[in-house]
Amino acid sequence: MTHAKLPPALRSPLSRNVALLLESRIPARLAWCWEGSPRVIGIWFVWEEDHGLSMATFAGSPKLGELRAGDPVAVSIDTESFPYRSLRLGGPIALRQTTGLAPEYRAAAARYLGADAGAAWCTQLDGRDQVVLRLVPTWATVSDMSRSPFLSEPV
Amino acid sequence: MTHAKLPPALRSPLSRNVALLLESRIPARLAWCWEGSPRVIGIWFVWEEDHGLSMATFAGSPKLGELRAGDPVAVSIDTESFPYRSLRLGGPIALRQTTGLAPEYRAAAARYLGADAGAAWCTQLDGRDQVVLRLVPTWATVSDMSRSPFLSEPV
Repeated sequence: MTHAKLPPALRSPLSRNVALLLESRIPARLAWCWEGSPRVIGIWFVWEEDHGLSMATFAGSPKLGELRAGDPVAVSIDTESFPYRSLRLGGPIALRQTTGLAPEYRAAAARYLGADAGAAWCTQLDGRDQVVLRLVPTWATVSDMSRSPFLSEPV
Repeated sequence: MTHAKLPPALRSPLSRNVALLLESRIPARLAWCWEGSPRVIGIWFVWEEDHGLSMATFAGSPKLGELRAGDPVAVSIDTESFPYRSLRLGGPIALRQTTGLAPEYRAAAARYLGADAGAAWCTQLDGRDQVVLRLVPTWATVSDMSRSPFLSEPV
């Protein structure tokens, strides 16, 4: 993936809002469609500018029965506290099977849980195979309510 | 809506996990499909056992161009901190236009922001019309990782 193909909101240098969201411990909310009906789940992610947004799931997970390579997905990474900040992105999904835990999953565990707890978490899952869902976004939109004029006024 | 038609996870008495999520200040993550592509956004909600999950948006909002009465939607209400707890629910959406702010929106503002800040927030929006998206769920699934056997062991 070349840098120039990324949506503007995801090109370096990232805005402070986008950088904070991509480095946060907020799970991605991943949505897809199955036979016309939407699904949405929370899932760990890792962002790499060269590889996009990677999310790992376990072999046999029900969602893998509903996701095919190339299917469009949408993701929201957004704060749960007011004033809300969000990054939404989407595009086709790629799937890659792994033997044992995916490196992306170990990296996510270290970020979400911290290095030691992340390693302990992965140790108890050792030997389980995964599928990495990789989204190279074709679109992205950003919102930052903390910049709202209303909020710059005392309430 | 009769109580017996609700999915079991949403019938009284609610589990502690479901009650905490429905009373929380966590935005709903609402997903729908448009021409085969998924969308997902964060949005305030209010839950009423007799009316389902209500979410209000502003007249003219882009999502209203993609949502028709009866379309299936999916919602996740889930914590962003580990161990994760989640309630996911879905079903067809009903739309109701309002003149001025919807009562459901005022109730949501009071819960999410607190009574005073919620009222101030609504005052600056007074006179704007809304559309209430109402989901009477036909399915619901619950997850509570805090009950995982792994987590009951010292890490």
